[in-house]
Amino acid sequence: MSTPFNETPKLTPIGQIGEQGLIRLLTQNIRNSQPGTLLGTGDDAAVLELPVGEQLVVSTDSLAEGVHFDLTYTPLKHLGYKAVVVAISDILAMRARPSQLTVSLAISAKYTVESMEEFYRGLLTACEQYGVDLVGGDVTASAGGLFISMTALGSVAPGQWVKRSTAKAGELLCVTGDLGSAFVGLNLLEREKRVFREHPEVQPDFGDNDYLLQRQLRPEARLDMLETFDRLQINPTAMIDLSDGLGRDLESLCRASGVGCKLYEDKLPIDPKTMSQAMEFNLDPTLCVLSGGEDYELLFTLPAADYDKVKSHPDITVVGHLTDASEGMYLISKGGSAMELKDRMFVPEA
Amino acid sequence: MSTPFNETPKLTPIGQIGEQGLIRLLTQNIRNSQPGTLLGTGDDAAVLELPVGEQLVVSTDSLAEGVHFDLTYTPLKHLGYKAVVVAISDILAMRARPSQLTVSLAISAKYTVESMEEFYRGLLTACEQYGVDLVGGDVTASAGGLFISMTALGSVAPGQWVKRSTAKAGELLCVTGDLGSAFVGLNLLEREKRVFREHPEVQPDFGDNDYLLQRQLRPEARLDMLETFDRLQINPTAMIDLSDGLGRDLESLCRASGVGCKLYEDKLPIDPKTMSQAMEFNLDPTLCVLSGGEDYELLFTLPAADYDKVKSHPDITVVGHLTDASEGMYLISKGGSAMELKDRMFVPEA
Repeated sequence: MSTPFNETPKLTPIGQIGEQGLIRLLTQNIRNSQPGTLLGTGDDAAVLELPVGEQLVVSTDSLAEGVHFDLTYTPLKHLGYKAVVVAISDILAMRARPSQLTVSLAISAKYTVESMEEFYRGLLTACEQYGVDLVGGDVTASAGGLFISMTALGSVAPGQWVKRSTAKAGELLCVTGDLGSAFVGLNLLEREKRVFREHPEVQPDFGDNDYLLQRQLRPEARLDMLETFDRLQINPTAMIDLSDGLGRDLESLCRASGVGCKLYEDKLPIDPKTMSQAMEFNLDPTLCVLSGGEDYELLFTLPAADYDKVKSHPDITVVGHLTDASEGMYLISKGGSAMELKDRMFVPEA
Repeated sequence: MSTPFNETPKLTPIGQIGEQGLIRLLTQNIRNSQPGTLLGTGDDAAVLELPVGEQLVVSTDSLAEGVHFDLTYTPLKHLGYKAVVVAISDILAMRARPSQLTVSLAISAKYTVESMEEFYRGLLTACEQYGVDLVGGDVTASAGGLFISMTALGSVAPGQWVKRSTAKAGELLCVTGDLGSAFVGLNLLEREKRVFREHPEVQPDFGDNDYLLQRQLRPEARLDMLETFDRLQINPTAMIDLSDGLGRDLESLCRASGVGCKLYEDKLPIDPKTMSQAMEFNLDPTLCVLSGGEDYELLFTLPAADYDKVKSHPDITVVGHLTDASEGMYLISKGGSAMELKDRMFVPEA
């Protein structure tokens, strides 16, 4: 995976073509693929048609420079890709199918036309990957840094959407994929940034940690789970996407549903690379899972009777179960001791 | 109209309650009124239902501190109100009915919890005024200033939406309301800001220019025109909202439609207050109309045969007609001379 530590960018100031010129340039390569997109970019608004009888799902999310990303090591193309993933992950967390997206950008003077083209290349690559149309956008000047706001739209059969507030005591707690890798990838990038600052002549050394870097810089959203749920004939009773770390997102789900939980440390799905690299950083891998965030996997709950349907699925792990709210939210350690979840959730230094 | 030149704000740093605490506080007073809002804020996404058989219209717009607003003289409550107006104006420009809204905010450290509550008060006041539900949002930290991104949703009967690219030569050019007032109001505020900087003890003097201030600080969107079009039995052939000044927006409509135009200076609807205050500033009122922007009125086209239907309507003015593209885009002055529109569109200093 390439990162832009030593890139020499071409430099066309945005002022040279103007905001309208920039929008025309960025949107000229948009090819809509959704049959429901009746009118895309270029007018006051887009016009869309939902699949007959379906309901609309809409979510807004944003990424701010210095808060959500650091352009020292984030290629703008990857950032564009990630923006789409972040946006549609919320739609997937409702068990809805993402279909369209709008993007609003505030750009400070340091950005060039070429850098914004890179960003859009990533954006449109992800749109193609996930079958989502970019139907609207807005570009404005910013006093400081890059700010990206995305609104994702999707559709779902009436009443088939899944909230985060409908889980019940006794149900299974499941996650998709593996966790903590995006955070360990972030630590790798932060380490190389420090090295680069002190020794600009040294090329970054990411070893064979491509997987960890990709999880941080170019994550994927679990669109595949829509089919998996259907195929396994399971209906999540509650769902949330894992953007803020398993600890915080699990807490959100439990609080919204009015339940407690027991989460088993030895069940947490952690990739061997994540495990070994976390240890090299003297980071507790469990803490990376609980507090790290940005995995964009799904956390969902199922009736206990569904255990046999998911127990051997390679992309789904049962990590615990829900309890009465009065029993609290606990992590059961590998040694068998119970620790309150919130005491295990301080965010380690990146 | 009150402006915050000498306000003493209460000061609770946002860090004291955290971003999640802030979102909870801001969204606790939301009351949805649209029957189509099945699930509002508080989950991964909102769930909406369109009126049976209707199509969805969606638009994204943004407001950036230092570019679109100056908090020296913009009360945050008005800014919240204006954000809704800016967003739904694009939906109205498609002849669609606005129904829901999401808002994404990036907030720098200088903002307090109380200031964001003020902003939301204005936002929710406008939502109530226009019958629009606030169904989603996102708050994040910003490196510099306040950035507001809004996505508005609306619905329209199949195929009844109006583009900006479908006007034809020979058609009438119509505008709603009066123009240029928001820009003259901006000049008033800028003058008082300069006075305040030099003489902080002097109270601002806006004379009896409440109308001009309101047009700038708390504009309204032309929701009423949906009914007016129906009642007058007219079907705009093309439409755009007037956010960037009549000159630029007319140019956008003409270019998109592949037509030219003749715009008559003596037909431009200018309020007497706008006229007299512009002259006091040594500003050409016509230039304020062409280049000023932020009027949030509608510019639309009609078949020539509809002239009798609109000629005496108090809120609609026929300001010119469309020509072949080869005839260019011209302003016909009061003296009868024709000037290319683009030569009359330099933006005067505020």
